[in-house]
Amino acid sequence: VLDDPATAAAGIARVLRSARERSLPVYIEVPRDMVNVPVDAVPVLPSRTPHAEALAECADEVIGRLAAASRPAIIVDVEIRRYGVEAAVAEFARRCQLPVVTTFMGRGLLAQAPDVVKGTYLGAAGHPAINDLIRDADALLLLGVILSDTNFALSERSLDPRSTMLAIDRTVRIGHHSYADMPLDALLPALVERAQPMAGGGRALPDAGLAYPRNLPDDDRALTPSDIAAAVNDLFDRVGPMPIVADIGDCLFTAMEIENTALAAPGYYAGMGFGVPGGIGFAASGYRPLILVGDGAFQMTGWELGNCRRYGFDPIVILFNNTSWEMLRVFQPESAFNNLDDWQFAAIASHIGGVGERVHTRGELKAALTRAYERRGVFSLVEVMLPRGVTSDTLARFVSGIKALRQRQQDALAASSAAPVG
Amino acid sequence: VLDDPATAAAGIARVLRSARERSLPVYIEVPRDMVNVPVDAVPVLPSRTPHAEALAECADEVIGRLAAASRPAIIVDVEIRRYGVEAAVAEFARRCQLPVVTTFMGRGLLAQAPDVVKGTYLGAAGHPAINDLIRDADALLLLGVILSDTNFALSERSLDPRSTMLAIDRTVRIGHHSYADMPLDALLPALVERAQPMAGGGRALPDAGLAYPRNLPDDDRALTPSDIAAAVNDLFDRVGPMPIVADIGDCLFTAMEIENTALAAPGYYAGMGFGVPGGIGFAASGYRPLILVGDGAFQMTGWELGNCRRYGFDPIVILFNNTSWEMLRVFQPESAFNNLDDWQFAAIASHIGGVGERVHTRGELKAALTRAYERRGVFSLVEVMLPRGVTSDTLARFVSGIKALRQRQQDALAASSAAPVG
Amino acid sequence: VLDDPATAAAGIARVLRSARERSLPVYIEVPRDMVNVPVDAVPVLPSRTPHAEALAECADEVIGRLAAASRPAIIVDVEIRRYGVEAAVAEFARRCQLPVVTTFMGRGLLAQAPDVVKGTYLGAAGHPAINDLIRDADALLLLGVILSDTNFALSERSLDPRSTMLAIDRTVRIGHHSYADMPLDALLPALVERAQPMAGGGRALPDAGLAYPRNLPDDDRALTPSDIAAAVNDLFDRVGPMPIVADIGDCLFTAMEIENTALAAPGYYAGMGFGVPGGIGFAASGYRPLILVGDGAFQMTGWELGNCRRYGFDPIVILFNNTSWEMLRVFQPESAFNNLDDWQFAAIASHIGGVGERVHTRGELKAALTRAYERRGVFSLVEVMLPRGVTSDTLARFVSGIKALRQRQQDALAASSAAPVG
Amino acid sequence: VLDDPATAAAGIARVLRSARERSLPVYIEVPRDMVNVPVDAVPVLPSRTPHAEALAECADEVIGRLAAASRPAIIVDVEIRRYGVEAAVAEFARRCQLPVVTTFMGRGLLAQAPDVVKGTYLGAAGHPAINDLIRDADALLLLGVILSDTNFALSERSLDPRSTMLAIDRTVRIGHHSYADMPLDALLPALVERAQPMAGGGRALPDAGLAYPRNLPDDDRALTPSDIAAAVNDLFDRVGPMPIVADIGDCLFTAMEIENTALAAPGYYAGMGFGVPGGIGFAASGYRPLILVGDGAFQMTGWELGNCRRYGFDPIVILFNNTSWEMLRVFQPESAFNNLDDWQFAAIASHIGGVGERVHTRGELKAALTRAYERRGVFSLVEVMLPRGVTSDTLARFVSGIKALRQRQQDALAASSAAPVG
Repeated sequence: VLDDPATAAAGIARVLRSARERSLPVYIEVPRDMVNVPVDAVPVLPSRTPHAEALAECADEVIGRLAAASRPAIIVDVEIRRYGVEAAVAEFARRCQLPVVTTFMGRGLLAQAPDVVKGTYLGAAGHPAINDLIRDADALLLLGVILSDTNFALSERSLDPRSTMLAIDRTVRIGHHSYADMPLDALLPALVERAQPMAGGGRALPDAGLAYPRNLPDDDRALTPSDIAAAVNDLFDRVGPMPIVADIGDCLFTAMEIENTALAAPGYYAGMGFGVPGGIGFAASGYRPLILVGDGAFQMTGWELGNCRRYGFDPIVILFNNTSWEMLRVFQPESAFNNLDDWQFAAIASHIGGVGERVHTRGELKAALTRAYERRGVFSLVEVMLPRGVTSDTLARFVSGIKALRQRQQDALAASSAAPVG
Repeated sequence: VLDDPATAAAGIARVLRSARERSLPVYIEVPRDMVNVPVDAVPVLPSRTPHAEALAECADEVIGRLAAASRPAIIVDVEIRRYGVEAAVAEFARRCQLPVVTTFMGRGLLAQAPDVVKGTYLGAAGHPAINDLIRDADALLLLGVILSDTNFALSERSLDPRSTMLAIDRTVRIGHHSYADMPLDALLPALVERAQPMAGGGRALPDAGLAYPRNLPDDDRALTPSDIAAAVNDLFDRVGPMPIVADIGDCLFTAMEIENTALAAPGYYAGMGFGVPGGIGFAASGYRPLILVGDGAFQMTGWELGNCRRYGFDPIVILFNNTSWEMLRVFQPESAFNNLDDWQFAAIASHIGGVGERVHTRGELKAALTRAYERRGVFSLVEVMLPRGVTSDTLARFVSGIKALRQRQQDALAASSAAPVG
Repeated sequence: VLDDPATAAAGIARVLRSARERSLPVYIEVPRDMVNVPVDAVPVLPSRTPHAEALAECADEVIGRLAAASRPAIIVDVEIRRYGVEAAVAEFARRCQLPVVTTFMGRGLLAQAPDVVKGTYLGAAGHPAINDLIRDADALLLLGVILSDTNFALSERSLDPRSTMLAIDRTVRIGHHSYADMPLDALLPALVERAQPMAGGGRALPDAGLAYPRNLPDDDRALTPSDIAAAVNDLFDRVGPMPIVADIGDCLFTAMEIENTALAAPGYYAGMGFGVPGGIGFAASGYRPLILVGDGAFQMTGWELGNCRRYGFDPIVILFNNTSWEMLRVFQPESAFNNLDDWQFAAIASHIGGVGERVHTRGELKAALTRAYERRGVFSLVEVMLPRGVTSDTLARFVSGIKALRQRQQDALAASSAAPVG
Repeated sequence: VLDDPATAAAGIARVLRSARERSLPVYIEVPRDMVNVPVDAVPVLPSRTPHAEALAECADEVIGRLAAASRPAIIVDVEIRRYGVEAAVAEFARRCQLPVVTTFMGRGLLAQAPDVVKGTYLGAAGHPAINDLIRDADALLLLGVILSDTNFALSERSLDPRSTMLAIDRTVRIGHHSYADMPLDALLPALVERAQPMAGGGRALPDAGLAYPRNLPDDDRALTPSDIAAAVNDLFDRVGPMPIVADIGDCLFTAMEIENTALAAPGYYAGMGFGVPGGIGFAASGYRPLILVGDGAFQMTGWELGNCRRYGFDPIVILFNNTSWEMLRVFQPESAFNNLDDWQFAAIASHIGGVGERVHTRGELKAALTRAYERRGVFSLVEVMLPRGVTSDTLARFVSGIKALRQRQQDALAASSAAPVG
């Protein structure tokens, strides 16, 4: 409420403190007829920090449990970025010699610390070595990890409270008890201070064979999504990594087959259409992004590329065009509406200030991607024509896992549906 | 809340009754994990109707005031469509011989009753004869009229309670008293029943000179928005009226210079991007619409035209391309961001399944519009190139009126800004 | 909320304005640890007054309807006291020559204007002439009247909207329409200004025979509640009226048989135990009250009389002792718990600083009441022993009316109980 | 909400489950016109119990900390009664050989287990041995303890989280972490199961000299509150303990000097007037209570004793009559209103069905108490006349402690009052 200048200022101060303390967006709604009304100076309220004794007790317990374990591991997710503790996490993992993996939604975190990141945990949809690492851990520290289906639907382990420590949302839960008011930016320094090589750390992980697809042949074979990953890995090997912005769908799953690099994607709510506008945001921040996007999403927001000419942005856009809502098709193959029309996206590029190429073969893709990389000052659209029904291996594993899970849930619901709900 | 099957059903029933009773959209939020949960059968609750005596008292008072007036008039707005009483309003006006005008947001209402509709009330921005009619009325019946700036910002009369009767939102306000629970679908039949020729009705209105622009010359002159209105009026004269869907901006003001016909537009919140998707909705309902849209809005949602081929829709789209956010420029001419890039929209049409033509002269426009009308089965995009800074006469009058109003408001705010707000 | 000194002051100011505007109590809750915290100066917000045109329209309509009626009448209730308009109501009634009655809860209002008050409307439980006056009115102005069962349960007329004008709660409802923001302290001056002798005013009311019981014989007959009324009327005839404070139960109904005088009683919620503490409040305000109370209520709070000695208060308390919760018994005669023990209240009086007398006959009552009146400086308790099961005539009529009403309601409920409630 | 029969039943079921789960009162508000409306059968929802693993983890930690301590102790408060775990607490304390004290509000708990209860913790106002026991404890288990000023205002130790375990409100807090959903009726059985003699248990407590006052001389000395405690202890020594119901004020502090026995008193909110009605409740439950009450409270509700005759109740009431609100006087000695009038309570007793005696000396008190004990079938009121200004030793210590505390708080507030509150 903006009842008067003092109340308004006090309210705004509280909301802004919440934004900082929780590292989450906040809303301040200003009624349209109040826009020009003055308010008092808004004070900067100090962030509330945890009680020093409570912090010590909590950090000691975390360290104690990790040190006592024979197979400890760490999973990280988006909150370590929000609270600005990526470097501290890397330092902690190094000193303790503990393996770190990201969640699906956390993919791209710790890109600057390849020595500590072993990969991304996708459960049954991911690499078996990563899956084993997490499934068999006897002390698992989850830093800033959102417990959602997106991250854990295909997990082959339940998060057994006896061996799980979860720090999220300013709370640390260990076993069946919890520490309130314990944000990551207080916890991590306390952990680093106590870090030391651990008995269960430093163990040789089985040769993960984590090599992502590479060395795409220069031939006339039709393309698959994994070919795109190979082409990008080849490019990065030559020119160094680029930050990736991915839309939703198989292009995001394909991103899991590209070397770990900074990655932005709408992982949580899976809102379609994020890719191109998100990439323009990256470009406006001074980066040259690689944008991965499907034709469904491109129909929605791809045209924003027309704004690149005004600003001189030159993103590289790889458009996965299978004239299809393929992500919907995999779950509902009988629906004809998943078949999209063939819009000639590459042909349009020149009319809105860019350069487009449509490619059908592995050779064409390699060449087009190279040209795109070398073409500066205008956006490049590489429209990769894919057959309907072909997905990346990662998505294929994810879909079969989700279908099995859904079937189990429906069976359970059917079994209980005679009973009252309340 | 969906606590249990019976509660859920009762709640849904109440919400649906509200939707019907108020003719407004409602929300029913189903938590994601409750989608498959069964609920009891949802009863259809009967709509609540006004008390018969109250209805009679209210209708008698409305009739009495209209009958006693020497210059009565009626204004209609969107709620007469929502409550399904357009025909009853026309019948009432005819029997009483009362003149009817629409609001700006109500433009297109009563298109089937050209005998009773005298035009659209735009205050100082509109036709002087309409302005006089409303300003001088000594009994003014507002049926379903939203009292917003969009409708009345430029009104030269305040709505004096002594001569105003306002039926909106299930309430009738007359003078300083009000009748609750009095929806239009109850009120109108009661009014029709009491209708009779009135002393102040049937008077000859001054020759309004309401002729809209027509007879566009077939020459090489550059185009203005009013030329588009003339071209459309010429077309309608030849082939009959089409329903219009307008986006926001000068294309909507230009629509005020086209003969009254069914019109859909985002008049209230002025949300940009409605035109093309709205027109596809019309097409899906079996009409062939004429879509009016600016280049700013077309950048947002114009690409949805690519969906026409799947369904065989053939709307005619007139794109007002001045490479500009002209509606913003008129209020803020100093901002360079209002200059948009030149996207070649017409050239793109063929890549997404339609036919586009870019026109620069009056002759080209006439010809292109004729071809578009005759071309069936694909969408036609007539991209009309307009110089920056040229607006329709209606918009020009509107802008100068709003600027004067805004200046008065800022002066008043400045005068009061020293005082506390609360 | 008391977030800060400025917010607190603004909030307190708004609450206090509501108290004044609505003439109702308000709450300001101060957390126990905030009692000593300073707040900014609390401004006195001006009361909001009705729009002058709205007031004129409303007053004109009220006057017009009263003037056009052949049998107009006025009912008043507690809000005319709250808004301080008793004198204005009396003046209005005099000028218009209109008869005024109070509601049951309004009993005691206009005690200073016996020329305009014809009595108290109790419906079928009251005087037939009053009942006729209201039942037959063709224009009925209700000033500050609460539409509750307490006031209207036994009404023989429904409040037909066509002839009813109700001013309560800052709203005036006439027929089926209403005027908002129209408080009594604005309305009454506007009515007085327009007052004039009315066609339907000044008519001779049928000889109401409103004489209350009087002239109690000085004999040995056992007492009834109406004898108490007679004894009090006799006393008032000799020494002038005293203000009365009544508890709930038959003592309140008996008060209806005493000449109209200032009366305080818990009429709305019928909370038991109000009589003696309420009377002490009157005494503390400088009046010598007559307190009417039953033995049930006296068991609860009668002992507060012990505080009179400290302050020199000398109220006269008439205790209706039938060793019974008689008011409960009339509705539920089978319940043995309604039989109370015989506590010797009069004997206790001297132990707590007063004088008590227990009386059984009409002669004893007359004498005891006279002595009590003459005894100053200490409280006097006249304990009137009444047989169980004997009530005042007014209560007897009220009970039979309520029982009939309740039966009709239960019949209706039974008839509908098969249907769903929602 | 009682929208329909099914919703109503579901809502009532939830509220009743909360009552049982939380052992707290609940409200079910039935609108007056809904009393006779039928509802569906109300199911008995099962109580939610803690997760078995969480319970084990929590109980293990509690046991571990107690076992590791050299000076462990237990404090109990009202929730062990509410959750029905008094016997389990006693059993646990016995097996572990741990000392138990009650809080002030918990006085009377574990009256059946005198072997484990060492007394009541009153901080500086209580016995030094108890004060030392708690102040020096290095592991302190608080079972069902309310952290309020009433219990801890005069504590000489802060509740150091490092050595404190608090189980209240279905939560167990240990150090800086907490276990949710852990009610006492789940926790206690788990503790008992793990109970064993502990290293720090079974230690000889210093001879507490906890002997309460006894052996009141049979002489003519004026009485003090502690004399009443002595007289009661003497009586209990002869006839065995009686349950006590105490009102608020010095009579409650005096109760702390009586041997531990079942005690009911309004300890938390200190509402005056609880004593006599509370004692009648005890009597109605089949006990013969000893009621301790001051003259201030007796003026409010003492007269309820008149109801004893109907039911044959024979409580013994000891009325502390110092014609004074002494509890207020100790904090505000300058206020004349604390001097009450001399009401002759004992003399009144016979008028409402009991027997009263007023006593002034130690000899009279002893004799009157003996007579009262032997008098059955009617209530006995022993009105003990006390000089104003004389309090029990316990109250004297409490008052000086509170005054010192209040002064410190006011000093702190004054120091901070210049700063903004928000």
